[in-house]
Amino acid sequence: MAERELIEFIRALRAGQDLPWLEVGIGDDAAVARLPGGDRAVLTTDMVAEGTHFEPGTPPEAVGWKAVARSVSDLAAMAARPRCVLAAVCMKPGTDAEFARRLCRALWDASVKLSAPLVGGDISSGPGLVVTVTALGLAGSSGPITRSGAQAGDAICVTGALGGSMRGRHLTFPPRVAEAVELAERCHVHAMIDISDGLSTDLLHIAQESKVGVALDAARIPVHEDARALAGGDAEKALEHALNDGEDYELLFCLSKKDAEVAVQSGVLGVPVTLIGEVGASPTYNIILPDGTRHALRSGGWEHLKT
Amino acid sequence: MAERELIEFIRALRAGQDLPWLEVGIGDDAAVARLPGGDRAVLTTDMVAEGTHFEPGTPPEAVGWKAVARSVSDLAAMAARPRCVLAAVCMKPGTDAEFARRLCRALWDASVKLSAPLVGGDISSGPGLVVTVTALGLAGSSGPITRSGAQAGDAICVTGALGGSMRGRHLTFPPRVAEAVELAERCHVHAMIDISDGLSTDLLHIAQESKVGVALDAARIPVHEDARALAGGDAEKALEHALNDGEDYELLFCLSKKDAEVAVQSGVLGVPVTLIGEVGASPTYNIILPDGTRHALRSGGWEHLKT
Repeated sequence: MAERELIEFIRALRAGQDLPWLEVGIGDDAAVARLPGGDRAVLTTDMVAEGTHFEPGTPPEAVGWKAVARSVSDLAAMAARPRCVLAAVCMKPGTDAEFARRLCRALWDASVKLSAPLVGGDISSGPGLVVTVTALGLAGSSGPITRSGAQAGDAICVTGALGGSMRGRHLTFPPRVAEAVELAERCHVHAMIDISDGLSTDLLHIAQESKVGVALDAARIPVHEDARALAGGDAEKALEHALNDGEDYELLFCLSKKDAEVAVQSGVLGVPVTLIGEVGASPTYNIILPDGTRHALRSGGWEHLKT
Repeated sequence: MAERELIEFIRALRAGQDLPWLEVGIGDDAAVARLPGGDRAVLTTDMVAEGTHFEPGTPPEAVGWKAVARSVSDLAAMAARPRCVLAAVCMKPGTDAEFARRLCRALWDASVKLSAPLVGGDISSGPGLVVTVTALGLAGSSGPITRSGAQAGDAICVTGALGGSMRGRHLTFPPRVAEAVELAERCHVHAMIDISDGLSTDLLHIAQESKVGVALDAARIPVHEDARALAGGDAEKALEHALNDGEDYELLFCLSKKDAEVAVQSGVLGVPVTLIGEVGASPTYNIILPDGTRHALRSGGWEHLKT
């Protein structure tokens, strides 16, 4: 059963509940809760599990970084400012004490480096190594930015370069927190997501939540050298990596073409911004391949359009 | 390696960090973060893992309840009002879809019943069933109540009855949220904790964090009928269950003797309150057994005092 299906299942349960203080609920990168004093708490929880998000034998330093950075990246997707994190660590009984200490130190170090110090947690034995990190952020005056605000005529932009993160970047990526806050202050960003599932899937998340269509220009997609390395000399394979690998943790966002022009020209805090497509009014999802042919964009790839 | 040791390890890492907005950090039931608008966010994360917190084959409804109730119980320990929870669910690949749906529904239902609606989460495959719930609460005007405020001369009180929760109550207990808020409004509670590790261990947590001594009067400890049932006719065994089993999720708290008198006389929201001991100035931890002999209180039991 897919995560998406379960999320929709919970969303349906929630439909009857009136929660006036909940600005953003299940289904976005993070929840936004308005508190009585006026603060807007941005909350997200994310886990990394052995065998799924990292291989057995991965150094605890890499596991700790990834666990914290993934949650903080969800705050970035809302242009929220990180405040703190909590971590729950599940380890097999008999886990080496030195491993446990190194993992705890890694969680602490990552949390401080990412401006979200670790303030609490839970440590327990269980069926295997699973680290769950919950991040609390604060919505800025220009945020939070959700997945659902994309408008017809918007440009689709992305930071950095995509694909091939399994070569190692998925364990070491810097979440684009400062970049997101800077972007939100400089431009009117209509919708944003961090690329975890892959460009194709995450762009469809924006499209579906915003009830718009998208046309992706494949020739413009910034392909990471890791994707090229994996593809050997095959340009189409490299493109597929950029489109579908995921775990890039770059920002994918929609904004007016005028704002996009500025963002593309100047980048954001030294990170390049690339315009890769356009939002349309009708809910069709297209990709134009480098050879000029138009195909249906699917989660995880594309299909020939039926004519 | 014990959880306690790792917590002290992280606390030591934190020692150099100046976090003026952090009212309560690692080592209490929950963290308390002051937000720019003046709200005080009370945050706690807790996991339940298969084989550790519940047996394989436990119905998902029980797993979901326990996962949410444990985190909410940590809010109760601070006399905080629950606002919302997030849940991260790790399941073995190939987990039955119906099981997954029932678990998600249980998490949702428990969250609503406990006034902390589920607003976000993460679902992923991993080495086994692990459910991590993070709860956000708000500190009341009389809270948050920490573990570290017990004063010499205080009475030690407990709600409900203790011991034998493994007979089933550990999966079905009602966290004492409303009771904690009511208590904090009616009395000046100096220190509080929810009993998860067991009365002996959790009382020592309060004593150590408050830098005080305790004298527990074993004859007064309210022994649950589940503890008696486990002990057969053996009164000392029943007492041991009440003292050391844990997972009672009752409130253990310290307050002036005058305030304690009122609490004991009236109970709290229908739940009985029992006075079970006294706080002393010197950091010695004693238990007076029903036969009148005095012993050293230890985490998980007692030892004959060396004379």
